[in-house]
Amino acid sequence: MSKPVRIGLIGHGFMGRTHSNGYAQAPHFFKTEHTPVLQVVCGRDKEKTQAFADQWGYKHIESDWKEVIKRDDVDAVDICTPNHLHAEIAIAAAEAGKMILCEKPLSMNAAEGEKMVAAVEKAKVPNTVWYNYRRVPAVMLAKQLIDEGRLGKIFHYRAQFLQDWTISADLPQGGAGLWRLDSAVAGSGVTGDLLAHCIDTAVWLNGSITSVTALTETFIKERTHTETGKKQSVTIDDACSFLCRFENGSLGNFESTRYARGHKALYTLEINGENASIRWDLHDLHRLQYFDYKNDSIIRGWRSIHVTDGDQPYMGNWWVPGLQIGYEHTFIHQVADFMKSLDEGKPCSPTFRDSLETQYVVDAVLKSAKDHQWEASK
Amino acid sequence: MSKPVRIGLIGHGFMGRTHSNGYAQAPHFFKTEHTPVLQVVCGRDKEKTQAFADQWGYKHIESDWKEVIKRDDVDAVDICTPNHLHAEIAIAAAEAGKMILCEKPLSMNAAEGEKMVAAVEKAKVPNTVWYNYRRVPAVMLAKQLIDEGRLGKIFHYRAQFLQDWTISADLPQGGAGLWRLDSAVAGSGVTGDLLAHCIDTAVWLNGSITSVTALTETFIKERTHTETGKKQSVTIDDACSFLCRFENGSLGNFESTRYARGHKALYTLEINGENASIRWDLHDLHRLQYFDYKNDSIIRGWRSIHVTDGDQPYMGNWWVPGLQIGYEHTFIHQVADFMKSLDEGKPCSPTFRDSLETQYVVDAVLKSAKDHQWEASK
Amino acid sequence: MSKPVRIGLIGHGFMGRTHSNGYAQAPHFFKTEHTPVLQVVCGRDKEKTQAFADQWGYKHIESDWKEVIKRDDVDAVDICTPNHLHAEIAIAAAEAGKMILCEKPLSMNAAEGEKMVAAVEKAKVPNTVWYNYRRVPAVMLAKQLIDEGRLGKIFHYRAQFLQDWTISADLPQGGAGLWRLDSAVAGSGVTGDLLAHCIDTAVWLNGSITSVTALTETFIKERTHTETGKKQSVTIDDACSFLCRFENGSLGNFESTRYARGHKALYTLEINGENASIRWDLHDLHRLQYFDYKNDSIIRGWRSIHVTDGDQPYMGNWWVPGLQIGYEHTFIHQVADFMKSLDEGKPCSPTFRDSLETQYVVDAVLKSAKDHQWEASK
Amino acid sequence: MSKPVRIGLIGHGFMGRTHSNGYAQAPHFFKTEHTPVLQVVCGRDKEKTQAFADQWGYKHIESDWKEVIKRDDVDAVDICTPNHLHAEIAIAAAEAGKMILCEKPLSMNAAEGEKMVAAVEKAKVPNTVWYNYRRVPAVMLAKQLIDEGRLGKIFHYRAQFLQDWTISADLPQGGAGLWRLDSAVAGSGVTGDLLAHCIDTAVWLNGSITSVTALTETFIKERTHTETGKKQSVTIDDACSFLCRFENGSLGNFESTRYARGHKALYTLEINGENASIRWDLHDLHRLQYFDYKNDSIIRGWRSIHVTDGDQPYMGNWWVPGLQIGYEHTFIHQVADFMKSLDEGKPCSPTFRDSLETQYVVDAVLKSAKDHQWEASK
Repeated sequence: MSKPVRIGLIGHGFMGRTHSNGYAQAPHFFKTEHTPVLQVVCGRDKEKTQAFADQWGYKHIESDWKEVIKRDDVDAVDICTPNHLHAEIAIAAAEAGKMILCEKPLSMNAAEGEKMVAAVEKAKVPNTVWYNYRRVPAVMLAKQLIDEGRLGKIFHYRAQFLQDWTISADLPQGGAGLWRLDSAVAGSGVTGDLLAHCIDTAVWLNGSITSVTALTETFIKERTHTETGKKQSVTIDDACSFLCRFENGSLGNFESTRYARGHKALYTLEINGENASIRWDLHDLHRLQYFDYKNDSIIRGWRSIHVTDGDQPYMGNWWVPGLQIGYEHTFIHQVADFMKSLDEGKPCSPTFRDSLETQYVVDAVLKSAKDHQWEASK
Repeated sequence: MSKPVRIGLIGHGFMGRTHSNGYAQAPHFFKTEHTPVLQVVCGRDKEKTQAFADQWGYKHIESDWKEVIKRDDVDAVDICTPNHLHAEIAIAAAEAGKMILCEKPLSMNAAEGEKMVAAVEKAKVPNTVWYNYRRVPAVMLAKQLIDEGRLGKIFHYRAQFLQDWTISADLPQGGAGLWRLDSAVAGSGVTGDLLAHCIDTAVWLNGSITSVTALTETFIKERTHTETGKKQSVTIDDACSFLCRFENGSLGNFESTRYARGHKALYTLEINGENASIRWDLHDLHRLQYFDYKNDSIIRGWRSIHVTDGDQPYMGNWWVPGLQIGYEHTFIHQVADFMKSLDEGKPCSPTFRDSLETQYVVDAVLKSAKDHQWEASK
Repeated sequence: MSKPVRIGLIGHGFMGRTHSNGYAQAPHFFKTEHTPVLQVVCGRDKEKTQAFADQWGYKHIESDWKEVIKRDDVDAVDICTPNHLHAEIAIAAAEAGKMILCEKPLSMNAAEGEKMVAAVEKAKVPNTVWYNYRRVPAVMLAKQLIDEGRLGKIFHYRAQFLQDWTISADLPQGGAGLWRLDSAVAGSGVTGDLLAHCIDTAVWLNGSITSVTALTETFIKERTHTETGKKQSVTIDDACSFLCRFENGSLGNFESTRYARGHKALYTLEINGENASIRWDLHDLHRLQYFDYKNDSIIRGWRSIHVTDGDQPYMGNWWVPGLQIGYEHTFIHQVADFMKSLDEGKPCSPTFRDSLETQYVVDAVLKSAKDHQWEASK
Repeated sequence: MSKPVRIGLIGHGFMGRTHSNGYAQAPHFFKTEHTPVLQVVCGRDKEKTQAFADQWGYKHIESDWKEVIKRDDVDAVDICTPNHLHAEIAIAAAEAGKMILCEKPLSMNAAEGEKMVAAVEKAKVPNTVWYNYRRVPAVMLAKQLIDEGRLGKIFHYRAQFLQDWTISADLPQGGAGLWRLDSAVAGSGVTGDLLAHCIDTAVWLNGSITSVTALTETFIKERTHTETGKKQSVTIDDACSFLCRFENGSLGNFESTRYARGHKALYTLEINGENASIRWDLHDLHRLQYFDYKNDSIIRGWRSIHVTDGDQPYMGNWWVPGLQIGYEHTFIHQVADFMKSLDEGKPCSPTFRDSLETQYVVDAVLKSAKDHQWEASK
C-alpha cells in the first residue's frame, strides 16, 4: 500500500543533513501513501560519505553524481551541492526521468533557471525547490490569514535576513562550509543565499515584484582562499538592500547582510494591510505577530500567537499546545508535502517554475546594484 | 469660577516631589472647577524647605506640621511624612476640618488605621490615599475591562513587586531616604511598602482577600543605623510571599522583595478569568497584555496594548497615539481625580476606609509569617 | 563496536511518542557506543499497538507488560503508563535485571517511590526518570552558569507551570488522554503532573527544599467519568501554589494550575542571586534571560540569550547559530545522555533516588494544602 | 541670580503644548541660571489663544506673529507654526536679534534653510531646532556608547518611522490638525515630517549621508480639502523608503509611512558595529537594546536596558530606578539643554546649521523618488 520513493541524495553537507532528517522523520509524523526511502547518498570522499550513510541509514553510496542518476533504484534526486552544480545535475536528472528536489536557490542566475524549468517541464517530472521557510507553521498561518482576506488591501511588505558570521577579516573564502563566500560557486553573496528566501516568501505571500532599486557592499575586500592559500578579491556581496514595487501596488523594503552584529539568522517579515498586519521572525519561529484593526479600539494591539495548536498548520501532527517545534521541521514538512503532492498528482510548491520568479528578482537586484538604476524584475 | 484648593504639604522628600508635580501639572492637562494651589510646604530644615518651596512655587513654608494644620489658608493637608506620623497628623487635620491626601500605606497597622478612618468620617472631610498605581492608564483600562465583564469567572490573581536596591550589606538603615529599612518608622519592610500597593490594586480589581499564609525573611540581619552610627538588628522584612483566597473563589499569589537582582521596580499583576486574562508590568507601564479566548482559535494570543489612544483612560488628555507617558503621571491623575471628586461631591477612591482593608491584609500577612499559621485577613 | 540497548516500551500514548522519537533520533545527532534499538512496544489494544510499532519501527509488540519484562531480547524497560502502574512495573523490571527509564513523576507518592528506589538499588540496574525539561539547552546552560558560581548567594527561586486546558466544565475525567484528571490513576492533579517538573528542576538548580506551606483548589467539583458515564467528584487538585524555604537560605514561590486562561504550557523559572539572575520560559524554550550585575552600570539589563550556538549545551550537535530546536529534543537529549552514561558507567540523572526527593516535596505540599500547616519536605 | 528668558510662542497647536510644558517643567527638574518665562503666546483666534495662555500661564497674547517679534519683553521666539511659515518668521526674528527655537523640520526645503542659517549666523543669535528624539534618555545613551567607541567600525544603520493614522480615505486634508497632508503647507509628507527625525538622529549618531536612492508613494490620490470642501489631489508622499551610503562607509536603510496598520508612532533605529549593536524603539522609549560581542560567547545576547538609573542621561533629575518617563520629557530636556547652553555660551544642538544637513538629505530623497536616480545628499 505504501509507495516507496527512493531518494538519491547528492551532497551531504549541512543541507544533506536537514534533508535526510526530513526523510527520516516525515513518516513518523505524517501519513502519506508515498513514503521516502533513504536509498543512496553521493559524495566525493568515500569514507565521509559512508559515515554519513551509516548515520542516516542510506543503503548505498556513490562518489559521482552521474552514477546516482543512472541508477534504476533511485526515483528522486535531491540536489544538495553548491549552487554552481544545480543546473547541470537537475537537467541530467530530468532527462533521466527522475523526480527532483533541488536546494535553493534554484540556479546561479535566471538564464540557467530557465533551462532547468524547460528540462523538468519537458520531462514532466515532479519537482520542488527547498525554500523551507514557507513551511514554518507560523509562516503558513500567515499565508492562510492572507488568503482568507483578513488583511485587505496591502500597502507594505518588508523583510530582513540579518546575520553576523563573516565579520572577521580572518575568515577565509572557498572550500567546504565556506563556498558561500566564493561567487564562482555561490553565484552571489547574501542576495542569492539569504534574500532569495525573503523574495520567495514575499512573492508567495504578496505577489510579483515588478521593479527594484538596490545597493550592495563588500565590506572585506580580500580574503585568503581556502583552495589556493592566497589572498584573493572577495567577489560576493556582503550586504544588499533593495526597494521595490509589487504588482498589487504595495511597496517593498528588503535587506540582508552578514555584518549585523548580534543577529545570528534574523529573518523577519512584515506585511501591512488595510485591516490587519502580520509580523514574523525566524529567531522565534513558533510565534506569529498579528494586529487586527477590527478589534474594539480600546483593546487593539499586536498579538503574539504561539503557533502550537492542533488547528494551526502542521501542528496537529506534532505535540500539544504550548510545545514548540524548531528549524528542522520545515524540511520534514516539505518532505511530507512532496509525498502528499505525489499522492494527489499535484505540483509541490515552490516548483522550479515558481522559483524562477525569485531568480529574476535576484538578477534584477544584482544588476541594479551594479548599474545604479531601477531595474524591471519580472 | 475656579475653586482653589490650597494645599499644605507636610514632608518634601521623594513623595513630596511627586505630589507637587501632580499639583503643578494637573491643571495643564485636566479641566476641573476645583484647582490645586501650592500654598505651603512644611519641613524640619528651613533652608531645604525654602529651596523646595522656591522650586515648586509654594507660597509659604512651615517647620512644624501642627502650624500647617492651624493655618486658615490651607484647605487640604497632604501627608508625605514617614509612616509613623500618618495617624497623628491625619487625625489632627481631620479635627481641624481639613481635606486629607495621605501617602500610602495608610498607617503603621490596622488599629491606627481604624482611628484615622473614624476621624475623617466623623469630620466628614474629603480624604484619599495615594495608591497611585491604580491610575496608570493601563491599570485603569484593566479595571474597565473587568467591570465590563470581559473576563468571566476569575480563577487566579497574582502580583509581584520586585526590587534589588538593598542587597548590599553596606547599606545603612534609618535616616533620610533610608527610613524604609527602619521598622520603627516604616512599620514593616516590603509588606507595607510594596505589597501594600499590590494588595490595594488586587482588592480593587478582584474583591476582598479572606485568608492568607505568608513567609517573610530578613536576609541581612544587622545594618549600621544612620542615626546611632551603630550596627543594629534589622527588624523589617526584606522579602515577603503570601498565598491567599479571595471572596470570589479565586486564588492569590503575591511576592515582594528588595533582593531580586535585576528588577528595579517590577510590579506585575495578572488576573486569569474564564474568558480572558490580563497582565501588566510597571517596567513597561504604558502597555497592557490581554488574552481574549473569544478570538478565533487560530489567531488567539496575548495582545500587547499600547495604552496611548484617546479613548483609553486618561490618555485623551495627553498626546497622540503611540506617545507614552510615565510614572509621575499617576500622581497627576490622582490630583485631577481628587479635584473632580470635589466638583461632583463624591469620594475619591481609595479613601481611608478603602485603604483600611489593605491594612487588615498587611497585618494578617505579617502575623501569618510570624506564627506560621493561616490568618483571616478581613 | 556499537552496543545495542534493546528497548521495551510500555505504553504508547503521548509519552510513548516522545520517547520513541528520542530513540529514533538520538543516533542521528549524538555519537555514543551504546545505541537504542526499538525492540518491542506494549499496549492493551493489539491493533493500535501494531500501528504504533509500524510507524516507529518496533520489531515486536506485546499486550501484557509482564511479557515485556520476561523477554530476553529486552535490555531496558521504558515505563510510559499512567502513574498508578509505575511502581509495580518498575519493581518487577528491576527484579528482572532490566535497566529502567521511567516517565515522571516517579510514583503516586513517596512511600511507593521508596520501594522503587530500593528495588533498583538492590538490583544495581541503570535507571532514570524522564524529567525532560532539565535537558532543554537553555535550562542546562542555567545549570552551568550556576555551577560556575556566577550568581553568588541565592535569595529567591520562583517557578510557575500554567495551563488552561481544563477550564471547560464539559471536559470529562478518566480514560485515555484524560486519566490526569482522575486521582486514582494520576495520584494528584497539577502537583504531581506539573509542579513535579518545577520541583525537580528547582532542587537540581538550587538544592533541597526543607519546608512548605501550600494552597490547592478544585474549581470544577464534578465531572462525568469517561469509564462510568456518570458525574463523579473530581478528586485532583486543579491548582496548587506553595511557598517554601530552601536549605541554602533562599525562599521559593511555586504555582501551578490548569485554569490560567491564555497559557498553554507556561513553565517559567527564575533564580535571583547576589551577582546575577536567570529566567527561563518554556513558551520560548530556546532563550535564556540573564542579568549580570557585574556589567557597567549604564549598560546593565536583562539579556535574551538565543541558545543556539555550538558552544552552548547540546547545540553543537544540531544546526547553526540562530536556528532553534523544540520540545521533543529534550527527550532526544535524555536518550543520548542515558546512552552516554552507560558508555561511562555512571548514573544518568535524575535517577530514581534523585526523583524521590521531588516525591517528598510533592507529598508535603499536598499534606500542607490539606491540613493548612507548614510541613517539612525533606 | 536667575536669568529669565522670556519666551514668545508662535502657534499653540500640538507642538505649542509640548513646548509650553517644556518651559513649565524644566525649572522643576533641572537647575540652570537661565530660566524660561512664559511671556506671550500668539494665535489667530483670540479666544482660543487666551484660553491657551490661561492654561499655561502666558502673561500676554498676540494675534500677529510680527507683533511678537517687535516686543521688547520677548527674548526668544519659539516657532510652532506649520512648516511654510518657518523661514519668514525665523529670518524676521533673527533680524530682530531674538533667540530662536524652531519646530522641525527646519524649512520647506534646503534653499529656504540656507537663508535661515545665514540669518541666524549673521545675527549671532542662539538657535536650535526641536528634533526632540535626540533627547530621549535611551537615545542619548546610545550616543554616549557610540562616542565611547564601544561599537567599533560601523556597517549598518537602519531606521523606520511607521504610523497608521491616514489609512482611511475619508480623512480630509488641510486645516487645523491636518495641514500635514497638504504639501503647500507641509512641504512634503512623511519625508519631511517623519523621516526628518530619522535623518537627524542618524547623522548625529553615524555621520553624514552622501547619496540616496528613494521610493515614494501616495496611496490615496484624492482627499476632500478642509478649506475648499472639494476633492483635491493629494500631493504629499504617504510613504517613503530610501537606501543610502554614509560617509563612514556604512549602509543605511530608512522607511517611513502612515499606512503601516498597527503602528502608531513606531520610530525604530538600529546601528550595527563590529563590536556591538544598538536598537531603540519609540514605542518603548525608556529601553535601549544593546548587544555586546565582547561578552563571553555562551552568554551573549541582546540586553534590554531599562534607562531609568541616575547615572544614565537625564535620569538623575527624575525619579528612582525602574520608574519611567515619557514622550513629553524630550521637550523638557531640550528646554533645559537650551538654558544650559546659554549659561555656558555654547550652541545647543541641533542648531539651524546642523538641521540644514537633514534638509539636504530630505531634498535628495524627494528628488531621487521623482527622477528614479541616485542623488547626492551632501
